[in-house]
Order: sequence, then C-alpha cells, then structure tokens
Amino acid sequence: MGFSYTTGLRYFNHDSRKGFMNPTIFDQYFIGSQSTYSLDRESNITDSAAAGTALATGYKTYNGVLGLNIDKQAVPTILEYAKFLGKSTGLVGTSQVNHATLAAFASHIESREQYDQIADDYFDEMIEGKHKIDVILGGGTSYFMRNDRNLVEEFFKSGFGCVTNVLELAADKNEQVLGLFAPVELPKSIDRKLSVPSLLQMTNAALKRLQQNPDGFFLLVEGSQIDWAGHDNDIVAAMSEVKDFEAAFNTAIQFAANRDDTIVIATADHSTGGMSIDRDGNHKWNPGVIKSISATPLVIARRLHETKSIVPLKHYMCFPLDDEDVKMVESTLEMEVEDTRQMLIHLINDYSSTGWTTKGHTGEDVPIYAYGLNRHLFSGRIENSDIAKILFEIID
Amino acid sequence: MGFSYTTGLRYFNHDSRKGFMNPTIFDQYFIGSQSTYSLDRESNITDSAAAGTALATGYKTYNGVLGLNIDKQAVPTILEYAKFLGKSTGLVGTSQVNHATLAAFASHIESREQYDQIADDYFDEMIEGKHKIDVILGGGTSYFMRNDRNLVEEFFKSGFGCVTNVLELAADKNEQVLGLFAPVELPKSIDRKLSVPSLLQMTNAALKRLQQNPDGFFLLVEGSQIDWAGHDNDIVAAMSEVKDFEAAFNTAIQFAANRDDTIVIATADHSTGGMSIDRDGNHKWNPGVIKSISATPLVIARRLHETKSIVPLKHYMCFPLDDEDVKMVESTLEMEVEDTRQMLIHLINDYSSTGWTTKGHTGEDVPIYAYGLNRHLFSGRIENSDIAKILFEIID
Repeated sequence: MGFSYTTGLRYFNHDSRKGFMNPTIFDQYFIGSQSTYSLDRESNITDSAAAGTALATGYKTYNGVLGLNIDKQAVPTILEYAKFLGKSTGLVGTSQVNHATLAAFASHIESREQYDQIADDYFDEMIEGKHKIDVILGGGTSYFMRNDRNLVEEFFKSGFGCVTNVLELAADKNEQVLGLFAPVELPKSIDRKLSVPSLLQMTNAALKRLQQNPDGFFLLVEGSQIDWAGHDNDIVAAMSEVKDFEAAFNTAIQFAANRDDTIVIATADHSTGGMSIDRDGNHKWNPGVIKSISATPLVIARRLHETKSIVPLKHYMCFPLDDEDVKMVESTLEMEVEDTRQMLIHLINDYSSTGWTTKGHTGEDVPIYAYGLNRHLFSGRIENSDIAKILFEIID
Repeated sequence: MGFSYTTGLRYFNHDSRKGFMNPTIFDQYFIGSQSTYSLDRESNITDSAAAGTALATGYKTYNGVLGLNIDKQAVPTILEYAKFLGKSTGLVGTSQVNHATLAAFASHIESREQYDQIADDYFDEMIEGKHKIDVILGGGTSYFMRNDRNLVEEFFKSGFGCVTNVLELAADKNEQVLGLFAPVELPKSIDRKLSVPSLLQMTNAALKRLQQNPDGFFLLVEGSQIDWAGHDNDIVAAMSEVKDFEAAFNTAIQFAANRDDTIVIATADHSTGGMSIDRDGNHKWNPGVIKSISATPLVIARRLHETKSIVPLKHYMCFPLDDEDVKMVESTLEMEVEDTRQMLIHLINDYSSTGWTTKGHTGEDVPIYAYGLNRHLFSGRIENSDIAKILFEIID
C-alpha cells in the first residue's frame, strides 16, 4: 500500500472533479515513511515474508523466510513478546490467516509456502504455557481442517470459540476465538456477502476480546488483499480493499482515543503493481469509473460465463462502455473466465486511466500512519525493521 | 519528484545488491507529504504552473496559470512578500529561469507559455521600488536577449552582474546577479561541461550574495529537469538530476546549520512518469546498469549519429549489451537521432527493470524534507498550498 494507493483513495472518495478533496483517515495520521527492501542476495525488492519478518522482529532477512534472521535463526516477534509479557494477542486479515505477513508475526519457518506447518505452529507453539495467539480471524479453513489434522477441533477443545460466519462471531462469548470465514482467502470487500465479516467487524470483534486483559494486548490487522489487487492490476479491488482497511484503521483509532496507553500504526510491507494515478499523459484519472463498478472483474466475469450472456455487464459497470469494447468482452465469453476477467481489468484500467508496470512488488518507500501514545517515534524516514525495534522498546 | 525518485536515489547510491542501504540526504530530513492536485475543471492531475502557484502563493488554481487564483486575480508570492519585507530574493534552476515552477514565484500571467512576458516581468515589476529578484541563475538567454528587447543589458545597466559561465560567476562581485548559462535549459548534470555550473554551484553563488542582507532572504532552487527526465521516461537523466538536486539541498542545509533563523525545505510540485522501482515482476531493480552509463541517451544518440558508428556505444554504456540489442541500436542510425535515443531509453529501462506508465504527470502525494527553524510545521500530510501559507506565517 504505497503512496499511490492512499492518495488514490482520496481521489476515489472525492465526489467530483472540482474543489478541495477531503482528507482520508490515513491522511490525518500520516507521520513518516519506511524503506521496505530485504537483505536478499537475489532480489532487491522485498516479498511479504521478509518485510513481514522485519516489521514483526526488527530483523531484515531473505525473501520467503518467516521469523528467521539472515543466519536462519528464529528471532522473537513482537506478538510473541507481548504474549511473554502476559498480554493478549490477535491476528486478523482478509487472506488465509497463515499467509505471509500475518504468519511472520507468529511463526519461524524457512518457507512461507509451508502453510500447514504454519497453521500447526499457531496451535502447537506455546509461550509461558499458553497458545501464542488468542484471536485469529480471517480465511483458511482448508489449512486448519485437513485430512491429517483438524486444528479447528483442537482449538475448540482448548477453549477457543470457533466460528465461521458473522452471526456466529457476534454470538461468540469466548475471550479466545478462531474465526475462519472461507476455505482460503475472503472475498474482496466489494464482493463480500453479509455473512462474511468485514475487516472492520473482525477488528471490532478482536478489540472486544483483547481489551479484557488488564495487562494489555498486541493486535495485527492486515488489509491483506490490497497487495493482491495490486498483483492483479485490478484497481476496483484495490480501492475496495484500501477502503476496507481504512475502516478498520478508523475503528482502532476510535478505540485508542478513549485510552492513554495505546498506539495504532498503519503501514505497508511494500507496494505492488507500480500503480499510478493517471497514465499515458491523459492527466485525467477517473475514479468515477471505478466507483460505478459494483463487483470485482472476477465476479463479473464469472457471472457473464454463468449466464453465457453479455447482458449482466451493464448492471455491474454503470458507465458508458463503447460498443466496440462491449463486443471485445463478449468475444471472450467463448474463452475462459480468466480471459474475460483480464479483458475487464484491461478496460477498467483504460477507462479510469490507471497505470501499472508490474504484476509484482515495487521498491519505493511506503507511508506510516500512527495515532496515540509514542506516535512521534515513527516520524521521519525509517527502516521497516525499525518499526519492530521501536515496538519492542515501548511495549511494557 | 515522488517517492519512487528519492527511494530510487537510495538504491542508486547503494554499492551492491547486499546489505543495508545508506540514507540519502533527503532521508535524514523527511518530515511530511503534500497533495499536489490543482483546481482545474478539465484535469485532476496538476501541471507545474498550478502546483508552482500553490507552493508560491497558497492558492490552488487552474493548470497553466502562474501567480493567479481561480478568479484569475493576481495573488502575492512568498518571494514577492519577502522582497516587500526588505529581504533579498533568488530564483535558481536548471531549466530556463522563466519556466513554470520558477516563474510561479515571480509572475502573474494567464499562460505559462508567455516566456518573453515572464522574462520582462522579472525586470519590469518592481516591489517597493526595487527589482523583485536579486539573484537569477539558470538557463534562458534566448528569452532575455531578443530582437525586441535585451533584458541582459537592462539588468546590467541597473547594477546586476551578468554572467554566462562558471568562471564569470565565480569572479562576479555584485550582490545582484543574472546568470544565464544556456539559450534555454542547461544540459543534464551528467552531460554538463565544467563551464556550466552545477545546481550546487549556483546555490552556493546565490547563498553567498543573499546572506549579505541583514534582513534575510528567500531563495527558490529548482532541480528543474527531474520532471523533464520523468517526461522522457529517462532513468539515467532522472538519477543524474536527483543527485544534482540532492547536492544543492545538502549545501543549503550546511548553510542553515550555522544559523538559527533559517529553514530549508525540499519538495516537489508533483511526480512524473509513473516511475517504478522494478517492473514486469522481475523483483530486481538494477541501478548498476544506470550507474555504468556516462551520458544521457540524447548525448549518446547524437554522438552515434555524428560518428555514423555504433563503436562509441560501449564507451558510454559500460555493461554487457546483448548483440541483438546492439544491432537494434545500430539499425536506428539510418533514422533520426530521436529514434536512436528512444531505442536507448527503451533498452536502459529494460536492462535496469525501470517501469513507467506515462510521459505526463501522476497524482500521488510527494515528500517534504525540511531542516531548521519551524520544520515541524511541515509535518504530516498537508496540501501543496499549505506550504506557502506556512511560509507567509513564519517569514518575518
């Protein structure tokens, strides 16, 4: 979530082409920036595992590695240290909960691809005789309910509430909870049914539980699919996910506003896609196009293929599409869903004048937004690893 | 000069693919960011005239307009206000000195294209009976020595030193000076002969003169061609110009470090080109390629056409080029210099893995770096127009 994403949100929220733009929630708490590069010999652009490890432990490391330093030694994460101090802890995200950035805060493993092992570690690795994570909310049932092991049952037996939809989450009274709302990742915010919680709802559910510990808590909330939208060069998904994350950040700030002992930090592990606000010298970025689309290109493409018809297109995309372009979409209905989706992504980027340079990550510094106690410590330009170093200093 | 440019400089300065990167001068003074959009009805991406006007006057306005608000009324610039307060003033840049951003600080005109009128205004518009700018350094003889008017002679007769190269600038003893070192813009830093001053040398020459006023001074120094390199999607020129600007920023900080009454601010009017550190999912940005090139693609292309030979190429580009690529360059020698230049730009972006999305500007927020008195006022996310508003408040 580099600067073009959070600036993009300000444009996106703006109602017209005219006048002053209102600040986003992020804008109001902007404090500094951080460098994201890892210490990988092969790649000078970080991945989420290395950047997550830096943010979690204070150690820059190789790409692909979780919770290990460059000597491949396990190093403690801020979440683990919080648990060691007797605090409560939480991991909340919209990817599977054992995906790289989240996993970097609670596992130590040579490859981010070892999803089953990471899920096992969430249960098996104890700190001072306790499970290290008290609140786990996101996607990932397929990793927790496997042929070889049923971690949901194990968590349940050890006293966790185990929930799978928004009503169960609301009804659950346990201080510890495992909520898995999809086999792998959650749908994008714009595509989410009411039964699947928003990042805001999950954050509120986590705060409700974690704040019961008089010794305090550490909570990581990841807007996991902002990056995924960038990988897909999908500006509809990107804006949907940044908004979802903004709401979660806002509720955390509202929580902290009633206390004098809490800091809320929002930052990114890196930016993705080389997204630019405007392209091709148009000098007219058009978020109105993005706002007039009511589902991600993936969901629209699936619907068109289900109905074998171009008719539903105009229900999803309420801006004038050239007849030529409609025909181009229609021609993909003979092909795969993915072909239709790529065509839609192409057209939306074209009509909105959104630029992209890569399906991978990019190297520019990313913003830090912070509210509350000690926020000034995150000012200026720092290293991603400094975030954890400062947190280790100030947590008590 | 968005975040990808200043982060790019840090990668560029880094010696290897390994280890921690040293902070740039910019990094050490990073304090905030600003939103660059103008109030243009046709375009939601700013141009340099509107952004320059916001930075100079505190008023966001239409694209193309200099020193006028959205009601087309002339509004005072911070440079003019400084002169009104009895301070000395300077405009220094590597474009023609009457180009948009510089001109926004000292003219009031409906179109940035009225270069001759802007040059005239620099001489004709008096504040409290004095010429409004005391030190003018950059390019632009063709606008100041015209068939219809010779402004150099007029400045000379009114007591300004008038110089055209680095030795004359060094020898000049006048407190007021007009230094024009090229017909239009200066060559890019990497292409500059010793007779043409660097931005550092011009900044030092300006500071030497302006500091003699016991009532203080306002100086604008523009690394004008960072943006132009972006328009050209030319990463060699971009890094050359950002380094040139970094040195100027550093000397201004050294100057201010000996005083307790001075603030130094570095920021951008907008970013350009949608430049990204890495592209195409390579995850290996290669500034080594950029560092091994000793001239801009324009200069290399001209040389190849002069010699009608591909042989000089390897003297300018000291990294292994595929034979296929050398042949592609050679094939352009039958065409125009511009064709060769575009081919070189294409190859350098390819080998260095630099991404671009536009030959125009982009909308993301840009960094603010500041040193000295009252720097904290520029923290957080502010509007470009706030920069001038704060300066009007703190200047005295």
